[in-house]
Amino acid sequence: MAGNIDREGYLIAPDPTAARLTRAVEGVDHDGNRTEIRVVEERPLTIFLNAQEIVTAMTIGDYPEYLALGFLRNQGMLAPGETVRGVDYDEELETVVVRTDGQTSYEEKLRKKTRTSGCAVGTVFGDMMEGLEGVTLPALEVKTSELYALAHRINRTPSLYLEAGAIHGTVLCQGARPLVYMEDVGRHNAVDKIAGWMFSEGVSAGDKLLYTTGRLTSEMVIKTAMMGIPVLASRSGFTAWGVEIARQVGLTLIGRMRGRRFVCLAGEERLLRDADPASVEEEGPKHRRKGAEG
Amino acid sequence: MAGNIDREGYLIAPDPTAARLTRAVEGVDHDGNRTEIRVVEERPLTIFLNAQEIVTAMTIGDYPEYLALGFLRNQGMLAPGETVRGVDYDEELETVVVRTDGQTSYEEKLRKKTRTSGCAVGTVFGDMMEGLEGVTLPALEVKTSELYALAHRINRTPSLYLEAGAIHGTVLCQGARPLVYMEDVGRHNAVDKIAGWMFSEGVSAGDKLLYTTGRLTSEMVIKTAMMGIPVLASRSGFTAWGVEIARQVGLTLIGRMRGRRFVCLAGEERLLRDADPASVEEEGPKHRRKGAEG
Repeated sequence: MAGNIDREGYLIAPDPTAARLTRAVEGVDHDGNRTEIRVVEERPLTIFLNAQEIVTAMTIGDYPEYLALGFLRNQGMLAPGETVRGVDYDEELETVVVRTDGQTSYEEKLRKKTRTSGCAVGTVFGDMMEGLEGVTLPALEVKTSELYALAHRINRTPSLYLEAGAIHGTVLCQGARPLVYMEDVGRHNAVDKIAGWMFSEGVSAGDKLLYTTGRLTSEMVIKTAMMGIPVLASRSGFTAWGVEIARQVGLTLIGRMRGRRFVCLAGEERLLRDADPASVEEEGPKHRRKGAEG
Repeated sequence: MAGNIDREGYLIAPDPTAARLTRAVEGVDHDGNRTEIRVVEERPLTIFLNAQEIVTAMTIGDYPEYLALGFLRNQGMLAPGETVRGVDYDEELETVVVRTDGQTSYEEKLRKKTRTSGCAVGTVFGDMMEGLEGVTLPALEVKTSELYALAHRINRTPSLYLEAGAIHGTVLCQGARPLVYMEDVGRHNAVDKIAGWMFSEGVSAGDKLLYTTGRLTSEMVIKTAMMGIPVLASRSGFTAWGVEIARQVGLTLIGRMRGRRFVCLAGEERLLRDADPASVEEEGPKHRRKGAEG
């Protein structure tokens, strides 16, 4: 299977052979025959910011440091210029502690909040919307030839999805090149791992495109905009609020990408139509995603 | 389209014509033509338990009262026998307040928690696992003829999914009959709305089956078990932890249900094979779910 698949060019690609990420489970099929299938792992990971417990995420468990950094970054709990003193992952305790110099704005907010209602759950979302206020995205041109090339390459990259299903993928791309391909049981985790990688490596966002297998909900659009990435593309559909926020922040939003078809609901004036859709191959059944709904 | 579709027997079915739940959005397609597509709405809903703000959920916005009750119930914040004095939905403020007599166990836990770390986010998951300790599910027999009949009927029921895509469905079933079909942008919301309906109506759980379009993650398995429902079936795949928890609590777990095919990874001894898979129609392209990944 790996023979005719192009993995060149990726900085990080899925490792479907990693023993820690999938497990063989026995059961029976519709005909009553014993069967063994590979299923993805799912583990709790508790993220701390300094002494503060923030959240417990359910994750496949690869790249916990990137997940923690990206989650905190995308929630606006780490400012872009924030100095991270250390990121300590403890596999046994299933924790990641992100250490910063001094107090973050999150801790300030939390103190205020605990005085009024005692809990910060409800503030997380409001804070994300607040974080968008200053965001302006560069007007990056998107060539349709690059969109088609990306979808073609990503669908053919060996992945946990092709191995075990029931997982989401998100890919950071530049032009026609997929750079970092993360997978996770929650699509938000896959995006957060990319955000953590970008934060760690100091990677620029303004010339990138984010591709996801998941739906274009408000959460996905907000995270992409918080990361400073001006284009978000998906094989799945839209929600109304996702579209609205994309238009507000100037994000190009492309959905329902399957074979030659796609729909662009925001930023269409930045699409450069340099490919003839009629020349693009339709998706074969092998590359349709069937198992990752949800 | 509605002509040949059987909606009989449902107590609650999706209303794809409800104006409040979808919106027409304009954009361009791959050929550069103007196009208008219907997309699902997504709104914040903040849930309060008495004076305590608990969470802000993103939802399509139907059945907010059931969503709030079901969320609190599935998180173990409302005990089965708890007296709910009132459920007040405020459409303008986008809030639901659930009022109980006296203090709930959640408020007790929260007070303890805020003293140590100031935040309850991380405890929600731990509390859910704790809630499973006393759960034993009845050994309900599942006829494969009923599984096939349910999948066939649910796939042909008019829904927001068929209308606009990008949404998850969960259906409470009894025997071969789908009873309550809820949809939402998050699959956990769809399940919580069913839990809220069951709690409100005092519906028994031990003779029911839950069908979902989403993946069989630990969260889905835990919610189903917390609801006392002994069978969970899905057209999507599994996670390893979801399977493990199902086996622990005695839940029958069936996944990858498409046409005649399915895989049972827990509780297979309770399957009664009264249907010949070879006589079951394969799914036509029209009934394959394509847009709800994520």
